[in-house]
Amino acid sequence: MNRSQPHPLRIGVFDSGFGGLTVLRALLRELPQAEFLYFGDTARLPYGAKSRETVARYAVSSAEFLVRQGAEYLVIACNTASALALDDLRAAVPVPVLGVVETGANAARTHSRTGDVLVIATAATVESHAYAAACAERQLRAVEKACPLLVPLVEEGWIDHPVTRQVIGIYISELMRDAQTAVLNPDTLLLGCTHYPLLRRFIEQAIPAHICVIDSAEVTAAQVAAAVRAPHAGTQRPPHFYATDSPAKFQRLGSRFLGRPIENVELVDLESLEAC
Amino acid sequence: MNRSQPHPLRIGVFDSGFGGLTVLRALLRELPQAEFLYFGDTARLPYGAKSRETVARYAVSSAEFLVRQGAEYLVIACNTASALALDDLRAAVPVPVLGVVETGANAARTHSRTGDVLVIATAATVESHAYAAACAERQLRAVEKACPLLVPLVEEGWIDHPVTRQVIGIYISELMRDAQTAVLNPDTLLLGCTHYPLLRRFIEQAIPAHICVIDSAEVTAAQVAAAVRAPHAGTQRPPHFYATDSPAKFQRLGSRFLGRPIENVELVDLESLEAC
Repeated sequence: MNRSQPHPLRIGVFDSGFGGLTVLRALLRELPQAEFLYFGDTARLPYGAKSRETVARYAVSSAEFLVRQGAEYLVIACNTASALALDDLRAAVPVPVLGVVETGANAARTHSRTGDVLVIATAATVESHAYAAACAERQLRAVEKACPLLVPLVEEGWIDHPVTRQVIGIYISELMRDAQTAVLNPDTLLLGCTHYPLLRRFIEQAIPAHICVIDSAEVTAAQVAAAVRAPHAGTQRPPHFYATDSPAKFQRLGSRFLGRPIENVELVDLESLEAC
Repeated sequence: MNRSQPHPLRIGVFDSGFGGLTVLRALLRELPQAEFLYFGDTARLPYGAKSRETVARYAVSSAEFLVRQGAEYLVIACNTASALALDDLRAAVPVPVLGVVETGANAARTHSRTGDVLVIATAATVESHAYAAACAERQLRAVEKACPLLVPLVEEGWIDHPVTRQVIGIYISELMRDAQTAVLNPDTLLLGCTHYPLLRRFIEQAIPAHICVIDSAEVTAAQVAAAVRAPHAGTQRPPHFYATDSPAKFQRLGSRFLGRPIENVELVDLESLEAC
């Protein structure tokens, strides 16, 4: 990159797959003057069921790739990687790294009056208790619930579907029972997975009306915008997309998350790059 | 391996994860005199949503690993890898390779009177049309149906669960409608995914009674036993397990598929081995 020329701030957005595109979508709205590189590690997704060591190894190699492409700021739009590997990521790359777990917990701190928060996420995120820890650091109590069927239901396209509403109903009622057992009075529900914003309407219907639903994509974009001062550089450039599996599939499935057509996805073979 | 000493036939069983343990379970029953090496590529699972190129690359490296450990015969217990990568696997290793797609199609040929067969499988297996092709080679007509929610439901532990019965009901009724549209008269249903034997009872309840359900695990074990002449070598040795992600998780989740406790899982880092 030619440092002598003024250039728009280059922000790398990383996810194991397509879900992080909900974060990119919000970022494009918040920071029209920035340039975005999106990396989806689609060959190795999902991270949600993998061990901490494996998730850290995969996330670090993906982050290093984005920095090699010129990213000056990294948004870890993958909840599992944010939960399990944020310290590894910060140690591995020389640019600021922001993860969706901390942005979610920040937003919960702002919204919650009772100090009691509910979190729904993938199995690995919940098992890491990263949200509970981030909440505790902010004097919030949290009850976490793994909802491993929601991602496959979204990916099946069963968004507005009776089975999905039933599964959401089961998960939410189990979560409310857990909150009652823990003698909590929650007023906030954190969507701890970037797929869940697509189900937000049905989650809001299943949860008691006084509980506010926080969408990690929206609050992450707002906090990135507050953290960076991107110089204005004329018209917005289209994001550049990298994927480790089929670009055609990325274009097809990703546009549902991004809310607009996706073009020019570049295939990256990280394993060969690592072997070099 | 010392070739001058008599030794039990060493059979490698490969799957992307735990599902292939239903095949190993049947093999242990059929071939008590053989020695088994099981490889689960759990760090890179599931293969079901990945491209042909990626599946072939992963499967070949796993198969090569098993052969390096002394496997003299390979059973590809992963439907996706059998469907997408059997030719690559046969080209890559110097031992006989048998895949569950061909064993399933063989069994369908034996069972079916009408010549019309139904197949349920993951999205990638169905998109490859490998079952339809294997059936066509045997003068069978096949209607294939992707059922991407069944694996996550099994892995959530919702085996005997109303949501799972409902999802099976939806998939089977769509499949029967497809068969009617294609003017077929099916009498056989092939379970084209090694997770599905755990749901066999509920699938049988959802399908018309005259349709025979074929379990790929059972028929694969029977065909391997028929193909090999394993010398008897005293008492059965316990299988050796390799996994690319958390051995603890492999032991915990795998025993449900194997139907007995699993001990001594060895962690393998294929990517580092490949980089060497």
